[in-house]
Amino acid sequence: MELRSEKGKMLHPAFKEIRRVYGFDEVALVPGDVTLNPEQVDTSFRVRDLSFRVPILAAAMDGVVDPRFAICLGKLGGMGVLNLEGVQTRYECPDEILGQIINAPLDMLTPLLQKIYAAPIRENFITERIRQIKEGGIPCAVSITPAYTKRFAPVAIEAGVDILVVQSTVTTARHTSKSLQGLIFSELCQKVPVPVIVGNCVSYSAALELMQAGAEGILVGVGPGASCTTREVLGIGVPQVTATMDCAAARESYLKETGRYVVVITDGGIRSGGDFCKAIASGSDAVMLGAALACSQESPGRGYHWGMANPHPALPRGTRIRVGTSASLEQILFGPTSVTDGTQNLVGALRTAMGVCGAATIREMQQVEMVIAPAIKTEGKLLQIIQQSE
Amino acid sequence: MELRSEKGKMLHPAFKEIRRVYGFDEVALVPGDVTLNPEQVDTSFRVRDLSFRVPILAAAMDGVVDPRFAICLGKLGGMGVLNLEGVQTRYECPDEILGQIINAPLDMLTPLLQKIYAAPIRENFITERIRQIKEGGIPCAVSITPAYTKRFAPVAIEAGVDILVVQSTVTTARHTSKSLQGLIFSELCQKVPVPVIVGNCVSYSAALELMQAGAEGILVGVGPGASCTTREVLGIGVPQVTATMDCAAARESYLKETGRYVVVITDGGIRSGGDFCKAIASGSDAVMLGAALACSQESPGRGYHWGMANPHPALPRGTRIRVGTSASLEQILFGPTSVTDGTQNLVGALRTAMGVCGAATIREMQQVEMVIAPAIKTEGKLLQIIQQSE
Amino acid sequence: MELRSEKGKMLHPAFKEIRRVYGFDEVALVPGDVTLNPEQVDTSFRVRDLSFRVPILAAAMDGVVDPRFAICLGKLGGMGVLNLEGVQTRYECPDEILGQIINAPLDMLTPLLQKIYAAPIRENFITERIRQIKEGGIPCAVSITPAYTKRFAPVAIEAGVDILVVQSTVTTARHTSKSLQGLIFSELCQKVPVPVIVGNCVSYSAALELMQAGAEGILVGVGPGASCTTREVLGIGVPQVTATMDCAAARESYLKETGRYVVVITDGGIRSGGDFCKAIASGSDAVMLGAALACSQESPGRGYHWGMANPHPALPRGTRIRVGTSASLEQILFGPTSVTDGTQNLVGALRTAMGVCGAATIREMQQVEMVIAPAIKTEGKLLQIIQQSE
Amino acid sequence: MELRSEKGKMLHPAFKEIRRVYGFDEVALVPGDVTLNPEQVDTSFRVRDLSFRVPILAAAMDGVVDPRFAICLGKLGGMGVLNLEGVQTRYECPDEILGQIINAPLDMLTPLLQKIYAAPIRENFITERIRQIKEGGIPCAVSITPAYTKRFAPVAIEAGVDILVVQSTVTTARHTSKSLQGLIFSELCQKVPVPVIVGNCVSYSAALELMQAGAEGILVGVGPGASCTTREVLGIGVPQVTATMDCAAARESYLKETGRYVVVITDGGIRSGGDFCKAIASGSDAVMLGAALACSQESPGRGYHWGMANPHPALPRGTRIRVGTSASLEQILFGPTSVTDGTQNLVGALRTAMGVCGAATIREMQQVEMVIAPAIKTEGKLLQIIQQSE
Repeated sequence: MELRSEKGKMLHPAFKEIRRVYGFDEVALVPGDVTLNPEQVDTSFRVRDLSFRVPILAAAMDGVVDPRFAICLGKLGGMGVLNLEGVQTRYECPDEILGQIINAPLDMLTPLLQKIYAAPIRENFITERIRQIKEGGIPCAVSITPAYTKRFAPVAIEAGVDILVVQSTVTTARHTSKSLQGLIFSELCQKVPVPVIVGNCVSYSAALELMQAGAEGILVGVGPGASCTTREVLGIGVPQVTATMDCAAARESYLKETGRYVVVITDGGIRSGGDFCKAIASGSDAVMLGAALACSQESPGRGYHWGMANPHPALPRGTRIRVGTSASLEQILFGPTSVTDGTQNLVGALRTAMGVCGAATIREMQQVEMVIAPAIKTEGKLLQIIQQSE
Repeated sequence: MELRSEKGKMLHPAFKEIRRVYGFDEVALVPGDVTLNPEQVDTSFRVRDLSFRVPILAAAMDGVVDPRFAICLGKLGGMGVLNLEGVQTRYECPDEILGQIINAPLDMLTPLLQKIYAAPIRENFITERIRQIKEGGIPCAVSITPAYTKRFAPVAIEAGVDILVVQSTVTTARHTSKSLQGLIFSELCQKVPVPVIVGNCVSYSAALELMQAGAEGILVGVGPGASCTTREVLGIGVPQVTATMDCAAARESYLKETGRYVVVITDGGIRSGGDFCKAIASGSDAVMLGAALACSQESPGRGYHWGMANPHPALPRGTRIRVGTSASLEQILFGPTSVTDGTQNLVGALRTAMGVCGAATIREMQQVEMVIAPAIKTEGKLLQIIQQSE
Repeated sequence: MELRSEKGKMLHPAFKEIRRVYGFDEVALVPGDVTLNPEQVDTSFRVRDLSFRVPILAAAMDGVVDPRFAICLGKLGGMGVLNLEGVQTRYECPDEILGQIINAPLDMLTPLLQKIYAAPIRENFITERIRQIKEGGIPCAVSITPAYTKRFAPVAIEAGVDILVVQSTVTTARHTSKSLQGLIFSELCQKVPVPVIVGNCVSYSAALELMQAGAEGILVGVGPGASCTTREVLGIGVPQVTATMDCAAARESYLKETGRYVVVITDGGIRSGGDFCKAIASGSDAVMLGAALACSQESPGRGYHWGMANPHPALPRGTRIRVGTSASLEQILFGPTSVTDGTQNLVGALRTAMGVCGAATIREMQQVEMVIAPAIKTEGKLLQIIQQSE
Repeated sequence: MELRSEKGKMLHPAFKEIRRVYGFDEVALVPGDVTLNPEQVDTSFRVRDLSFRVPILAAAMDGVVDPRFAICLGKLGGMGVLNLEGVQTRYECPDEILGQIINAPLDMLTPLLQKIYAAPIRENFITERIRQIKEGGIPCAVSITPAYTKRFAPVAIEAGVDILVVQSTVTTARHTSKSLQGLIFSELCQKVPVPVIVGNCVSYSAALELMQAGAEGILVGVGPGASCTTREVLGIGVPQVTATMDCAAARESYLKETGRYVVVITDGGIRSGGDFCKAIASGSDAVMLGAALACSQESPGRGYHWGMANPHPALPRGTRIRVGTSASLEQILFGPTSVTDGTQNLVGALRTAMGVCGAATIREMQQVEMVIAPAIKTEGKLLQIIQQSE
């Protein structure tokens, strides 16, 4: 590629090509030529032989999921993922610790989190928490970072976990490390008897390698979450629409080649029914929600939400945000609601959008037409935002 | 299509293509090489054998149109559309109910609307309202949703209605429903003796199918209205410039094929004379206005305006906004005015713009050059907006 | 052109093509490979045999130019244009009327202006004002609208005017009017013994026709001025960078064909030295300034500025803005200054920019490289703007 | 190139081509397919035979670098550049003068700066300041403008300086000046026994000429700095991502042709670890920081920062901004930190980003994939910004 320029300046080769990518606020869905009644659509997705009626996972964050919440979400048809490296597995009485986090003044928070998350993870707590969830009669999903997977995955398997999520800010099939012997994903996926969901990734090639390593699901998203500042701190991040489309493209290539369907889960940045619908239309099978569920009455964060990169000892990223406790988890998922901003009745919104777009299944919803339509701030909108702040 | 990427990353197929679409705030009209005196232009449009001097329809919303308003607009040359599923046909004394809506505190509004709009629609009220409008000596247009069309269209026809508008958020020629036997538009259009206007739609193919089914007019617009939050809640919506251009392209294709001219009406998102002119230049024959007319002294909303998706029992969308009562309907349409923000003398603005662009008719105005020129918020503009809010 | 779309949707023809256009806030200049000392550059431009050291015209607006101001600017090397249809030619003592405009409350302003500008234009005042300016020993330029040109141009010529500006919001070589016999520009340009500058226009073809009709200069700009709301009211307007580039392209075509060089003058939207430099780099020979000069101590508006479309009896556009009186005209043009926002020492800024870009003349400055670089509002910038407003 | 337009308008040639360029807020980095542990990456860069562990230069600005600060930064692995035309070489006791600048009311500042920087530069102070820095046992770098290079470079060389930075707003290999005999860079680079870093430039061709003249390093950036208003005043400036990419493209061309590697240093506009990482990924070897280091406890500006174009006698650009004193220089470079906005632990951020992108060296980091992903202001973000301002 060459760049042209003006007035005697020589043409010159480009240093690198950069392509335009897109996030939720920049796209919109186009209604279909056929429409369906919302009650006729099927929103379920499947991880190996486990089927979930509601394509929503709760993020493995301490303000979102504890065993009680996981059971509640599981009974409603979704999947709560318990963080095996959070307060639940470091403390006997996590509720007390959560209270400290919630009540800390904001400028004291990061040091406090850095201290709280320095306590050791205890294997007996892992076992206990999984036992609690399994007693709810629902599938149990837990999350571990790659560095701890070798150590804690066997404990979780032993305790009867149903789905293993291996997750860090960015996870690749090929991690190079001097100090530790790296986790080899293909070995892990073969060895453990349960489906492994891996993340996060944002590119075609990284997603494809994780699929080839045997992952049953891929978490998509680096940098977009409400409580995350990875993009400010590291400059890294791909907006969710493009990230999901690229990973979904990998899923299609892999499916065509092998016949195996790997679930793509958009993780982060979804604040409303509209974003939820756009994530599916970008190619995902389900979404992972943090802040959007943290505001349920059942969440352990009691109206607060904070990122799991926030306690990082050297390079903390993210912050605690006040999300409030607006409604029950059931209302957030299924309504009824009198709220008109898209934060409640998420599944109802998906059903209605699928109907309007003529998509009977998630797989069909992935195919609907999407357009680039930036949500421009008009003067009226700006005035409204300013007045809202007062 | 393939996407290239950098540094050893494999080229990969795109999951889907997305194209850029445009709204009113992103475009502007280019003056012509010839200019005309405004008094020489013709702004009329025609629905079958009914001709309207003023290419403006009032939206079928309870804060905008009641029989008295419809008569007033009709006499001025436009068309008011009465909602057959609003308070006018559910209550003996709609003014009392409108008073409740207007006086409700904003946080109590949606539940109140949900309750008010749960009252049954009464056929005798339909007949009575149409009779009231017809007494005004103007053509009477009413709006029904597809689900109620089979039941209420005959009542309206019987009562002497002149134009039937069949309208819901998204309407297609092919709706699939288990519970109800769907409305078949081609049958409807053949059976009823009056012209049928159908909407809303936003795409070439959906518009074309509605034209092929026999519609005399197409309402264009999903998600753009001032009191509408469909895009936040469902993620669905196409900005009005592109939506109108695509539906107008369908009109041209259909015209070329059949010789029949179908009216395209841009519905929603038009706040000023500038937007009105841009809608016509995007290919529409007329516009449907909500908030822009709700602020007339003659509107039943007495300075308030709310969306007809707001009372939705499960997925309410939209909100009530205060629009004020700035002027008489006549001033809003024809001036004179001392207001310089484009909200008054809408027809004068269209005439002047047509003159400046050298367009003698609506059909010529559809052909004028338009450019993509985003209304960028400069610092001065932002300061002004902030100060305005105080 | 055809548009592709997704999933079974048929490909469809585009209704019209729209191209992206640009304004000052979206572009920036690229330094040259050679740099010059600012004192070595020549900023002059020429209208037929009249040469001006400073490529700045003062807009024919009542808050900007009166005879005293015109003389002051003329002596400094620029050109003030007196409005022959403003208060100067309607009133014996314009200063008194200006005082009324300045002191009116903003919500009473438009009706007051509508009344003030309804007073008749008196030929003896035209003669008197031109005499006053000529006494200053500088070339005298005056502005008339096309509708009044036949009537008042002879009066102005008789009084000894040096340059005739024929200007309205949009002026074309071919205006169609039933009531009046239109002004034929080619006749006018041949008949009058002085150079004629015509405007405003924004497109290649309109500019070319005006050049072919014999104009010596073209005013470029519809909709961009600080006190103008044409874009809101009519939807019409092309941002100044593209408008200037397109009219300059017409100038180049016309020059190549005929050997005659027509001056292109960017009129409106220039708020700072940066905008001034970008206008020249877009292809103009000079700029016309309104608000940027209205804030001089010598301006008749005493710190206020209003648009000449604001008094329009039926469709008023624009508003009065407070610009303050920041400095003497000499300081605004040449400094010295302690202001760092680009509003003072405009000629110094142009000289420095020309030096940095390696342009020795205006003609060379028209050739410098320009890039599309939107002035994105960062968080820091937004915070600053908000704090500034308080 | 030809532009098409609509409706009978003639096609016309474009006046000039303009290409889209990008800044930090518009791009983001894509994680790699391989990831590395941060401790395995090498962040060093080299200027001829001098190697620096930390790819950070402190800007030659009086609020950032004095001899004490230069020593401190040098010991930590970076390079502080002392301004030979600032207060350090004009005054015996610069700290007193700095105190005046810091304590002046903002509206009195520019005239005060204009006065302070009118004092003569004294050669004995140059010698003394260099001696002070060399005593710290680190390489000494100083900055001179081209106009003073002939006069002061020999003094600096004599005093034992290690790196000579020749810097002005825009510097080209070919400057034309009537009054002074221009500096010939190729002669300078040959004559002086130390490496010469030259700047600033932003284009391929200008950078290439400076490399051909013998520069060991190129400073990239015109207009982007926090305390700089060059773009407002002159209209000149290229955003840093494109500027860096274009100069890096010149570096690659020159390297391929000659085998000599010239260091590219992005100077200005870097406010966070994210920007730092993006600058390297755009092709630079190191960055020059102003405001980002001015907030260290060791900076002479004691929490304030101002541009070196601000004291310009005729065309002052920039302003003094309050940056605060947030942390020690060591913390800003290496942490530990509890701040999550990316302003501290800059080197840690770079190491982490390199690890996530799979880049073991700066040279590999220059190759990582980058995408265009504008940082869109969502409503939540805008609300946050507005609330922050209060």
